[in-house]
Amino acid sequence: MIQRRTETALERCLPPETTAPTRLHAAMRYSVLGGGKRMRPLLCHAAGEAIKADPRLVDVAACAVELIHAYSLVHDDLPAMDNDVLRRGRPTCHVEYDEATALLVGDALQTLAFQLLAAPSTPPAAPTPERQLQMLTLLAQAAGSRGMAGGQAIDLAAVGLALSIEELEFMHIHKTGALIRAAVLLGTHAGAADEDALQTLGHYANRAGLLFQVVDDILDAEGSTVTLGKTAGKDAAQDKPTYVSMLGLTRAKELAARLRVEAHAALDVCQADTLRLHALTDYIVDRNF
Amino acid sequence: MIQRRTETALERCLPPETTAPTRLHAAMRYSVLGGGKRMRPLLCHAAGEAIKADPRLVDVAACAVELIHAYSLVHDDLPAMDNDVLRRGRPTCHVEYDEATALLVGDALQTLAFQLLAAPSTPPAAPTPERQLQMLTLLAQAAGSRGMAGGQAIDLAAVGLALSIEELEFMHIHKTGALIRAAVLLGTHAGAADEDALQTLGHYANRAGLLFQVVDDILDAEGSTVTLGKTAGKDAAQDKPTYVSMLGLTRAKELAARLRVEAHAALDVCQADTLRLHALTDYIVDRNF
Repeated sequence: MIQRRTETALERCLPPETTAPTRLHAAMRYSVLGGGKRMRPLLCHAAGEAIKADPRLVDVAACAVELIHAYSLVHDDLPAMDNDVLRRGRPTCHVEYDEATALLVGDALQTLAFQLLAAPSTPPAAPTPERQLQMLTLLAQAAGSRGMAGGQAIDLAAVGLALSIEELEFMHIHKTGALIRAAVLLGTHAGAADEDALQTLGHYANRAGLLFQVVDDILDAEGSTVTLGKTAGKDAAQDKPTYVSMLGLTRAKELAARLRVEAHAALDVCQADTLRLHALTDYIVDRNF
Repeated sequence: MIQRRTETALERCLPPETTAPTRLHAAMRYSVLGGGKRMRPLLCHAAGEAIKADPRLVDVAACAVELIHAYSLVHDDLPAMDNDVLRRGRPTCHVEYDEATALLVGDALQTLAFQLLAAPSTPPAAPTPERQLQMLTLLAQAAGSRGMAGGQAIDLAAVGLALSIEELEFMHIHKTGALIRAAVLLGTHAGAADEDALQTLGHYANRAGLLFQVVDDILDAEGSTVTLGKTAGKDAAQDKPTYVSMLGLTRAKELAARLRVEAHAALDVCQADTLRLHALTDYIVDRNF
């Protein structure tokens, strides 16, 4: 339901393939549309629902955060980074098109994310310009050198190294957690959340981000390429430190179970209606893709 | 003077090398600081001066547009794009660091540009949040798939093709012109420009953008790698369509002369104090680097 809603919203905010430069626009649409778990939009909408935000406003935030996520995947998959050929069960952008186009696709998707959040908002219940600037700042901090891009830089440097569990957590809090956290907070900002709700949900989002990553590592170790929709077993093959490589499968699963409990507990102290966020937390763990 | 001012402002807005991830931050600073013509900040300040904007506000706009320019150079120089090893007389980012780092440097510089424009502005004479959102939108449009990134996509597709002069102009209006135009308009937005001034200066900026590109093509054909600070003669070697390859050197110079006259004429109809913009227009043509 939310996934289909997000698909439609993304479809609308991406430039049509018929507009020049057509090949770039086609490649942008190829990289964003048609698949993906849409975990960040789901979290964004669930958080927006918790504080009764207008879902049309949450759509904008959800698209912006998903475009940042999509751009990071396109660049991550490039030969200079993870050199991956499969994503969401299809050839990655640089395989389907070419490397230079994939580079520009990622660049242009990032720009579009910020353009969306800066666009004049339509009433009723449009956020104030001040609120829009807050949301832009939040997304930029989550995406930038001290957020997602910074986490990826640490990830690169960590290949082949023996990290401590704290270092691994620090890396993933930036690499994965920052954008998951931003998704939750952008959803709450789309409404009129108070400082208290923002802080509680921020705490939840930190746990959810790590949980998401631990489960990802477990799935990568256990899953097959077909169910995963991306090349499985890459982490071990690339000698990347993961929760599974550090803790072993059993203890990684125990960690996931503990993070799940902590995420639920964080939601329990929140005054808002967090029913859907509770459900999403379980979905993060129980998904088998 | 403005160049030193911009250098200081850029220095301050970039994360320090001592902050984690240190290597990424060092590479970001390497790619932005220490050189460059700073043509966009110069235009930004000249336009700001024309409408008597507070130079401290223009600094923010100038840094944002320069960060977008710097990110595009880092990505342009990558092996998948122009595969260039020399920039501003020094090894390009991916040569000095590595390809993956250069990819992340460009990504994070783009994010930082938008983060700067979205940051709470400090009085006195701070722009309204509405104005900040307009500036964000302007920069995003100039940088995105229908601006700079789109122009680069057309550029990629044009290698080895025989373009018409109109097609070449269309490409450069996007690739180079969009950001030059944005620099001028962001400078005027930092003050309280009226619609009339915005339109006139926008017309000027279009001519200045093309002029800048034609002169660049002439310099690439004529210049040596030492005076240029980047690898000379690359365009011909890569079979890229340029004004020189299409028109020959003599007619390309005639075109530059005509665009210079048109740019000055556009400024002459403007009510603002455009003394410095006039001077910059000549500087664009007469520079020998």
